[in-house]
Amino acid sequence: MEFMTGVKEKETVDLAAVTAEGMEGRTVKIEGTVHTIRDMGEVAFVILRRRDGLLQCVFEEGVTAFDLKTLKEASSIVAEGTIHKEARAPQGVELRLTGITVLSEPAAPMPLPIAKWKLNTSLDAKLNRRSISLRNVRERAKFRIQEGVVRAFRDFLYSQGFTEIHTPKIGAKGAEGGSNLFRLDYFHRPAVLAQSPQFYKQMMVGVFDRVFETGPVFRAEKHNTKRHLNEYTSLDFEMGYIDSFEDIMAMETGFIQYMLKMLETDYAPELQILGITLPKADKIPAVRFDEAKQLASEKYGHKIRNPYDLEPEEEVLIGRYFKEEYGSDFVFVTHYPSKKRPFYAMDDPADPKFTLSFDLLFDGLEITTGGQRIHDYQMLLDKIAARGMTEEGMEQYLDTFKYGMPPHGGLGIGLERLTMKLVGEDNVRETTLFPRDLSRLEP
Amino acid sequence: MEFMTGVKEKETVDLAAVTAEGMEGRTVKIEGTVHTIRDMGEVAFVILRRRDGLLQCVFEEGVTAFDLKTLKEASSIVAEGTIHKEARAPQGVELRLTGITVLSEPAAPMPLPIAKWKLNTSLDAKLNRRSISLRNVRERAKFRIQEGVVRAFRDFLYSQGFTEIHTPKIGAKGAEGGSNLFRLDYFHRPAVLAQSPQFYKQMMVGVFDRVFETGPVFRAEKHNTKRHLNEYTSLDFEMGYIDSFEDIMAMETGFIQYMLKMLETDYAPELQILGITLPKADKIPAVRFDEAKQLASEKYGHKIRNPYDLEPEEEVLIGRYFKEEYGSDFVFVTHYPSKKRPFYAMDDPADPKFTLSFDLLFDGLEITTGGQRIHDYQMLLDKIAARGMTEEGMEQYLDTFKYGMPPHGGLGIGLERLTMKLVGEDNVRETTLFPRDLSRLEP
Repeated sequence: MEFMTGVKEKETVDLAAVTAEGMEGRTVKIEGTVHTIRDMGEVAFVILRRRDGLLQCVFEEGVTAFDLKTLKEASSIVAEGTIHKEARAPQGVELRLTGITVLSEPAAPMPLPIAKWKLNTSLDAKLNRRSISLRNVRERAKFRIQEGVVRAFRDFLYSQGFTEIHTPKIGAKGAEGGSNLFRLDYFHRPAVLAQSPQFYKQMMVGVFDRVFETGPVFRAEKHNTKRHLNEYTSLDFEMGYIDSFEDIMAMETGFIQYMLKMLETDYAPELQILGITLPKADKIPAVRFDEAKQLASEKYGHKIRNPYDLEPEEEVLIGRYFKEEYGSDFVFVTHYPSKKRPFYAMDDPADPKFTLSFDLLFDGLEITTGGQRIHDYQMLLDKIAARGMTEEGMEQYLDTFKYGMPPHGGLGIGLERLTMKLVGEDNVRETTLFPRDLSRLEP
Repeated sequence: MEFMTGVKEKETVDLAAVTAEGMEGRTVKIEGTVHTIRDMGEVAFVILRRRDGLLQCVFEEGVTAFDLKTLKEASSIVAEGTIHKEARAPQGVELRLTGITVLSEPAAPMPLPIAKWKLNTSLDAKLNRRSISLRNVRERAKFRIQEGVVRAFRDFLYSQGFTEIHTPKIGAKGAEGGSNLFRLDYFHRPAVLAQSPQFYKQMMVGVFDRVFETGPVFRAEKHNTKRHLNEYTSLDFEMGYIDSFEDIMAMETGFIQYMLKMLETDYAPELQILGITLPKADKIPAVRFDEAKQLASEKYGHKIRNPYDLEPEEEVLIGRYFKEEYGSDFVFVTHYPSKKRPFYAMDDPADPKFTLSFDLLFDGLEITTGGQRIHDYQMLLDKIAARGMTEEGMEQYLDTFKYGMPPHGGLGIGLERLTMKLVGEDNVRETTLFPRDLSRLEP
């Protein structure tokens, strides 16, 4: 009988073992894909691409036991060689090849110049060949940064006593009303895809006090802008026993600070590849919705057309204002008008035309919507009635409040938008692995 | 201007601060929900339920500045009192109340006896009132264990150089063929919900070498068993540069060992609440499909009806065999017949009727399906042709191989099934927050 006892020691090493101190002169085997071959005649540079970076390998005729002519770019190989210091090589070391073993070969030459430092290809061409274009080192680095964002979100919230939940994406009714929903047939019953985990995360506050979820949400919006996706990853949390809705903004600020620190320490190579200087978030200004509009209007001569809504251009101007006046890339805009927020938003007792809610703008783009929710059963019923809505299909959501709920609130962060701003892109599709928009359903 | 500077210090404390050494005699404020009130006349025990556990609070007439008659179960409160050692209390300490502040009250008495140690309510009743039934301390503990499983999966894979990815759930075509797919209208185009992230994670092996995803998958299967869900959470990974498909089993064994350790250290209170003894996974036997069938058939007198398939009863018997003969709760069953595996499965060169694949059985239930995949472009085209399938809709998946891919493989783990077996339940709905099955679309 054979037994599995855990991760197997490999004969091959990783990049860290090659670049470590004291490895000079050692002979190692390392796997990777042939990123490029630069043939100089008697010597050739074979650049190996691995998950942990690039490694310069040197092929020398008469030394390397392999026929260079038969080596193709995009082949997966095991390279065997001796480690030498070389200041001009990417990692400060190079591998002088003694042998090459080919694991697999491509069937056709590369259709995109992925070995170039910047892949100067149109967004459409990149998206059409996503599994190829991301082999470019800069392109893939964006998604390593994205990993860091999600990882920081979870790690930080675990440390704050949050419990992770997994809520269904197929349901009978949407949390925010009937518009913009993808509809499907669920064993001959009408069903919809979840626009957000809003109802579920609130329902779980009565169980775990603090919960979070990182998962897909679906919006059948007919927008076709650089900021919109029809499926995206939402980072959601909801917390009970808040003293005020500022607790939620404070928690988000804590997350952002934690995230920036984690990116700096654990994702330094990717930050360097992308040439990114991270923003500061030591203190994030918070300003009322009406005041923010006024400030931007006065400074930049923008006419306020609708006092109850924030146009994308106004968001940009508010972002610019707080960058110029306070040096901050982030700004919380608070107290959004009640009529622009969902029924479950808590109105401000001081002026019920406004809510105890906020958006977080990053470089002039909304990346978060959050706020305090109504926790009182009767208040919730009254708000539903006042809006002319029906309780039908919300029975179990409402029961949660009937049987007691602490004061609570939460937020949702758009992962792709946050990543886009962190890496300095201007189209959210650049930081979405496989975007879904009005025209794109594949790959 | 107001500024957010990070998580705010709260006036209230958490349970760890109450139970810590040297806190006796201190006066603290702590928030929670009134779990039960046991009124003994001049003294009453008010049990507070919090995310971190239960706290016994003692109400004394004339000492506690509050009218006990007005306190309702399921109210959210801030309790203020002095910490005293008390061996009979759940945490070894109790809080002698000086005051109570009510934050919110329920509108009706609790419909389920959630304060009982075991909630002896039917599964249907529990699921119909999910946000209430999970307020039972044992019920919610199962989902804390579930959190630990996912957390361990990610932490372990990060440590092994995997990158987390987020792939779309709406697509144009399913990875495993046309059956069992939920269909929807995507802006007047036919679309389906992803049965698995299979194609996408393979496509990303060429980019990141090792990837994983934890997310929902959707299967329109008309099964109505204790093991099946129509939406579940899949823990998927895919890894390149494998020497053989055993590398994948070895990696999964490493994960399970890591998970068991993490549950033991970080989720000890929940293990205790549920009375769980964790299984061992130091060495997991691996046995060929045909051999496993034979062994179970011989020992238990089970007749082999179909040599190419494993019936659920056979899985149970194989699980029993390896428990009895080797003391193992886990067993890898390898080399499944080719005709029972998808087209992308790598056939065994030694006998192409079988594949380099495996299932992992835990206590006689399949919790994982995995294996090596075909990485050679021409081999993949040949297999598609041999099965009479069409390449249509798979162009970008196939292009990934055309332009070079390392040998690779991976697996998918059903989170709810794994949790179910860990906590000793026998219906997967017990370990699903909001199950979706043939009859259940709400809440």
